[in-house]
Amino acid sequence: MEKSLGLNTDLYELTMAQSYLEHGKRGRAVFSLFVRKLPPNRNFLVSCGLETLLERIERFRFSEEEIEYLRGLRLFSEDFLDYLRSYKFSGNIYALPEGRVFFQNEPLIQIEGELPQVQLLETLVINTMHLQVVVASKAVRSVIAAGDRVLIDFGFRRAHGLEAGLYAARASYVAGFGGTSNLEAGRRFGLPVLGTMAHSFIMVFGSEEEAFEAFAESFPDRTVFLLDTYDTIEAARKVVELAKKGIKAVGVRLDSGDMVELSKRVREILDEGGLKETKIFVSGGVEEERIRDWLGRGAPIDAFGVGTKFITSSDAPYLDMAYKLVEYEGKPKVKKSPGKETFPYKRQIIRHYKDAKMDYDEVVPYGEVREGLIELVVEKGKRLKSLPSLERIRETLRRELEDLPEGLKSITDGREYRVLVR
Amino acid sequence: MEKSLGLNTDLYELTMAQSYLEHGKRGRAVFSLFVRKLPPNRNFLVSCGLETLLERIERFRFSEEEIEYLRGLRLFSEDFLDYLRSYKFSGNIYALPEGRVFFQNEPLIQIEGELPQVQLLETLVINTMHLQVVVASKAVRSVIAAGDRVLIDFGFRRAHGLEAGLYAARASYVAGFGGTSNLEAGRRFGLPVLGTMAHSFIMVFGSEEEAFEAFAESFPDRTVFLLDTYDTIEAARKVVELAKKGIKAVGVRLDSGDMVELSKRVREILDEGGLKETKIFVSGGVEEERIRDWLGRGAPIDAFGVGTKFITSSDAPYLDMAYKLVEYEGKPKVKKSPGKETFPYKRQIIRHYKDAKMDYDEVVPYGEVREGLIELVVEKGKRLKSLPSLERIRETLRRELEDLPEGLKSITDGREYRVLVR
Repeated sequence: MEKSLGLNTDLYELTMAQSYLEHGKRGRAVFSLFVRKLPPNRNFLVSCGLETLLERIERFRFSEEEIEYLRGLRLFSEDFLDYLRSYKFSGNIYALPEGRVFFQNEPLIQIEGELPQVQLLETLVINTMHLQVVVASKAVRSVIAAGDRVLIDFGFRRAHGLEAGLYAARASYVAGFGGTSNLEAGRRFGLPVLGTMAHSFIMVFGSEEEAFEAFAESFPDRTVFLLDTYDTIEAARKVVELAKKGIKAVGVRLDSGDMVELSKRVREILDEGGLKETKIFVSGGVEEERIRDWLGRGAPIDAFGVGTKFITSSDAPYLDMAYKLVEYEGKPKVKKSPGKETFPYKRQIIRHYKDAKMDYDEVVPYGEVREGLIELVVEKGKRLKSLPSLERIRETLRRELEDLPEGLKSITDGREYRVLVR
Repeated sequence: MEKSLGLNTDLYELTMAQSYLEHGKRGRAVFSLFVRKLPPNRNFLVSCGLETLLERIERFRFSEEEIEYLRGLRLFSEDFLDYLRSYKFSGNIYALPEGRVFFQNEPLIQIEGELPQVQLLETLVINTMHLQVVVASKAVRSVIAAGDRVLIDFGFRRAHGLEAGLYAARASYVAGFGGTSNLEAGRRFGLPVLGTMAHSFIMVFGSEEEAFEAFAESFPDRTVFLLDTYDTIEAARKVVELAKKGIKAVGVRLDSGDMVELSKRVREILDEGGLKETKIFVSGGVEEERIRDWLGRGAPIDAFGVGTKFITSSDAPYLDMAYKLVEYEGKPKVKKSPGKETFPYKRQIIRHYKDAKMDYDEVVPYGEVREGLIELVVEKGKRLKSLPSLERIRETLRRELEDLPEGLKSITDGREYRVLVR
């Protein structure tokens, strides 16, 4: 049995829940997870993380050890600790499927159930969905910029923790990346794992040639040689020399310097040396604007290793994502705090198309329409159907991108998609 | 036994390690973890995460299940899989103790041992240290801005994952925060846990008064009332009325609006109502510049809940932190990639003071001096002594801040501290 997750929440969720129970507030509540406003450099967001969330909600239980910790805080009643001991989510979950794009004020996840049960999940729900939406929505920008070039997640080392690296790899695969360097992500999600060699590898051997030869000896099919440890152009010439000895490079990696100049020169050297099939792989500070710029200037780059900036979503590392009470015992609930207004009721999203492109969305009370983008995925605590594979989720997003108006796909110009909340 | 962490690495660490072993490269290597250049809005960084790193290095092992996954990649030799099966770090670790401040090009962690062993740790070392250094170095800026006011970590929900929230709570406590809302962090690190109530709590009851009374009934000693669900000023008046019924507010929380205006008006209302002891607690978009601005304009705020911007370090979500080979078999190793030069040799840091303030640092080859800031913490795979408690680490940082020149403590002006690498 996997570790219980009950303490992965904020203290106030528990104090509120105890007080709800003590005051008979066990009515049916609906909480909605949404993003109030998109960051200036995001024209759309990608739904990502639902599968992870459902797994975690199933693990949101309290072990005896956790109950013991809570008792030690001298804050909670024994009745409430008993309630936690038997906690098991038994409500309904309505979700926008993974891989769909969404916009401001649209309900990504809606959770319906007994008030204290649903309140207790707040921190877990936001934390889980926020990370994967942030990363997928960043990664897809590189996918758009790169066109048919391959992108690889190289960000693990500078992700915010091991877990962030793991789920960011998942999110980047959903976004359209070709694989990851992260072995744990490879194992957990069945992702293709890729990698080359580090500068340290080159430096340990007596010469670059020796390092390349040694690596080729160990991995004859994985000969992607790193060129920039000493001098990129010189190293490219060495790769050509090696080919004459029968060691053919599958690819070369450039990790620093002027990527347009270097990739062109390296391409020439490789081509002249008969290595027309050898791919050029670029890493080091890769981000969507750079990809666009480099490719726009004709850089003959075949693949990108995308790292730190994507995995921390450095230009927009968080979203204004909130989990708000919208309905209690059938009555609408709204909050009026300036800049933080909420819309009442459980809701459905209707997407309108024009000339085969998304035109605008309507967000309407759930019962008003027969169907829309939102699906009921958990009913009375039970999953209704198996979730789609990552391959299918990727495909969903790929199709969404086809339907997205060109203006919204821009990685430089901010546009706001129209969302009518009725 | 805790879960092994062997797959928490990048594929290329393993391919390089196999090739090292196949080519007899098992000599003594030293890798150094450092930050090349500080972000524009960081004048210093805080050492944080060593204890977590040492725990993880002890868990950096490969289970049979993990070996099986690696075998399935059809990339590694059986000899190498055997090597991984018996992997156990047996080298030396030199570290800057937690709570010390450090600067560009200073070795935070240096790992010495058999080359493949030390190479394999790269991803784990960077990932682990990076997060806590990023967060502690951000959080300390709020601590400086807030002076003697209390700061609480409210960021869990928007941290990049559950693990990021957990270690960010640790890092913020090291930085000088008074506690966290994160229960798991409270349990794991013995941190004070704090919290108030959410808007949903207010909205579920028939009126604000009713909600406040209900909460006070459940937690008579924890009466921190949230004021901004409908109208902050009106809510403050209700808090005064409640006091007449014997329900005294320990504090009130403001979560939106003009914090200077509101905190002053609320203070007046509370004082006039005889609630001079009731604290004013502010949350919602709190960051160091705002804290400084609000306090500078005389806002009578007693405590801050600091959330999203600190926990994602939103103005500098990553550091240019690298783990580089600096020595192999006693020989210096340097890389010459443009903008990514490295300094050879294992090193020690000498800190020079002037008028009781830090003046400049020298980073010199380790053997050249008897002592400095860097300590040997693991020798031949064994911890040399128990690590200091979080309380002691906090105290170390508190003293460091006293020794830091005022210019470096500025949260608005960028200054570069002098580091001489000899």
